[in-house]
Amino acid sequence: MKRLELTKQRLMRDLDAMKAFTATPGEGCTRLPFTKAAQDCASALSSMMVDAGMEVFTDPAGNVFGRIPGKNRELPCVMMGSHFDSVLHGGDYDGIAGVICAIEVARLLLESGDCFERDFVVAAFNDEEGMRFGTGYFGSGAMLGLRDASYCLKYKDMDNVSIYDAMKAVGLDPEHIGEAEWPDGSISCFLELHIEQGPVLDRERIDLGLVDCIAGIKRYVIKIVGRADHAGTTPMDMRLDAVDAASKVICQIADWARESGEGSVATVGVIKVLPGGMNIIAEECEFTVDIRSRNEKILDDISSKLINSVEEETKAMGGNYQIQQKLSVEPVNLCGAMLDTMEASCKKHGYSYRYMPSGAGHDSLEIAPYIPTVMLFVPSLNGRSHCPVEYTDIKYFVKAIQIMKDLAVEQLNKNSEYSITQRALIE
Amino acid sequence: MKRLELTKQRLMRDLDAMKAFTATPGEGCTRLPFTKAAQDCASALSSMMVDAGMEVFTDPAGNVFGRIPGKNRELPCVMMGSHFDSVLHGGDYDGIAGVICAIEVARLLLESGDCFERDFVVAAFNDEEGMRFGTGYFGSGAMLGLRDASYCLKYKDMDNVSIYDAMKAVGLDPEHIGEAEWPDGSISCFLELHIEQGPVLDRERIDLGLVDCIAGIKRYVIKIVGRADHAGTTPMDMRLDAVDAASKVICQIADWARESGEGSVATVGVIKVLPGGMNIIAEECEFTVDIRSRNEKILDDISSKLINSVEEETKAMGGNYQIQQKLSVEPVNLCGAMLDTMEASCKKHGYSYRYMPSGAGHDSLEIAPYIPTVMLFVPSLNGRSHCPVEYTDIKYFVKAIQIMKDLAVEQLNKNSEYSITQRALIE
Repeated sequence: MKRLELTKQRLMRDLDAMKAFTATPGEGCTRLPFTKAAQDCASALSSMMVDAGMEVFTDPAGNVFGRIPGKNRELPCVMMGSHFDSVLHGGDYDGIAGVICAIEVARLLLESGDCFERDFVVAAFNDEEGMRFGTGYFGSGAMLGLRDASYCLKYKDMDNVSIYDAMKAVGLDPEHIGEAEWPDGSISCFLELHIEQGPVLDRERIDLGLVDCIAGIKRYVIKIVGRADHAGTTPMDMRLDAVDAASKVICQIADWARESGEGSVATVGVIKVLPGGMNIIAEECEFTVDIRSRNEKILDDISSKLINSVEEETKAMGGNYQIQQKLSVEPVNLCGAMLDTMEASCKKHGYSYRYMPSGAGHDSLEIAPYIPTVMLFVPSLNGRSHCPVEYTDIKYFVKAIQIMKDLAVEQLNKNSEYSITQRALIE
Repeated sequence: MKRLELTKQRLMRDLDAMKAFTATPGEGCTRLPFTKAAQDCASALSSMMVDAGMEVFTDPAGNVFGRIPGKNRELPCVMMGSHFDSVLHGGDYDGIAGVICAIEVARLLLESGDCFERDFVVAAFNDEEGMRFGTGYFGSGAMLGLRDASYCLKYKDMDNVSIYDAMKAVGLDPEHIGEAEWPDGSISCFLELHIEQGPVLDRERIDLGLVDCIAGIKRYVIKIVGRADHAGTTPMDMRLDAVDAASKVICQIADWARESGEGSVATVGVIKVLPGGMNIIAEECEFTVDIRSRNEKILDDISSKLINSVEEETKAMGGNYQIQQKLSVEPVNLCGAMLDTMEASCKKHGYSYRYMPSGAGHDSLEIAPYIPTVMLFVPSLNGRSHCPVEYTDIKYFVKAIQIMKDLAVEQLNKNSEYSITQRALIE
């Protein structure tokens, strides 16, 4: 009990310290990559890891790592972490709480006095959100060897500054981004603790979410084109009303997700109508569709229904359409063996838990296809995230840390190569 | 045949001359009220009426009238006309063609050498469109005694200039707007020739439209309010999706009009979604509904269906809504006796015709509740209007002028008060 209280005190202190690193004080956390706020945060994390007793190193992507060496340096390490960047006017927990908790796990491992077989590595990844450059998972992707200088030149922010130039401005060398890659087989598993960013745990009053899958996403921009005419003088049988056709598609989309089950969701978040006059029949109606599911077949089914419905309604109306696919991410299953360990650990500690998919992307989405990965969610108050009111009670982090420490210890004590390949996990 | 050719030549000349009066040369007709373009046009119309042999007078509303005196000055006059203002970047026919044709009818009456019982008055009304001040029917309303100085002070343009100040800037006195009113019983009937501004006559290859009714309008702005949440992390049964609820209403609206028949139309021309992100569930979905019908019961029925559906879908979703009624105009029947005369005249000349409602408002909509009124439509090429490509072949104006002249002669020769009251017409 005394140790849990110490963990709680340290978490509160450290999470509070991180609040200073924002470009918008008093208006939420704004820690865009390669800005002063983000670089200062990385330095503070580096100091915190040194203070905790870790060997600290950074890489050309701006990631920060802290290592507790194990007995057998030949074995792949156990890595735990998350990201330290934020969205614009975001909250004080998304990403950074997972880094702070990983550092606390490291402290607990060191304080246990035990010596483990493997290295324990805390990872603080840069630019997971992708908010500045319209990308995502930059730091974790670089660790996997998936980013290069041409990628850095390609993506630019709203001021037309490329990732390449933004990196150089803070003293990082994009030409050496390849050096951020970790050798094959050097990481045995990846553990990520993250806030849920959704309402499920909070509404159901459950302590922890064992994330068994990160949902796949298909995202479309659909434009239905009719003809602009006078709303008063054009008879119903002579009009090509883009809104009428589009609404007959849109009104079905959420229902398709409801009928599909397995936690599948579908959302139309943007609708634009041109020319947009009260007394003018719509020439164009453009809308976005975001479909997510843990089941790839459901993603495909809803996409097919969508495309068929657009074809059908546009044909009935007499106009035409354009469908652009903007995103296609396959669902990723997380590591069943590690989830079993986490479940046993929840039972042992008497923490309530549930299995659940993650509807949002995370560094784990980038990493899981290559390295056995698990995620643990803590409740987000009212499901709010990406806004200043984002909040998670400290007690949930304390509980999550116990589960992560148990899992880390189990993994750190393995004295041979991890036997489950990710290929097997996905199948 | 020779006389028709002369009419055609004069119409082409006069319509062409009017094209000069625009604030946007080369980019359509922009003749907003109380601007130089509109005032210059009024002066040119005044000269044209004088040249035709009429007594010309203007009023404090900026209307221009030309009179051919009849034998019995005690009898109410026969008035024919339309408006000379335009929308922004409009066409060269909407309104002004009806004024030019009325002047040509006056010429034909004078050239006939006949002397009629009653005065024939050509009216060129100011500010029918209401584009500048968000109003409408200003000149015809003033003639009926329906505009006063406080009205002029109330409505302002985008530069915050009131009608009051705009009038003073061109030398009109808004304090004397009451003097624009014509005495009760001084006008026996009103005749308006106008382009259809819709596709019916052009598609059906019909020469003339006998307008028996001006459709009533009900217009609403509806806001459905849900809750913004993350599109990926919020399960379907925990979301309040404003777009899902709104689209389930919108998709029915055009169908309600189709089922209602009688030429009823319904249009959603504007949809706005907030906050409007691809991965954010919509907090608000606001849309406009414009319903028009010649049958007031249908207007009421569709309105009821709309309100019930909004209530139902919002309740099912769990959010709330606001319904603002922005406009409610009753349908107006036009004068059956004069329509009969026009029909007989079409048959005599061998012109094809059809009865039809007007889906758009006109000066006749303002006037018909007070004075027996008819409208005659000529085809709009491809139904286009309120844009620079607005076009009507000159041959249709020549035909319409024959019908209007026949009707005018009949009405001018009546030697007692017009016997049909408008109250009887509406019932």
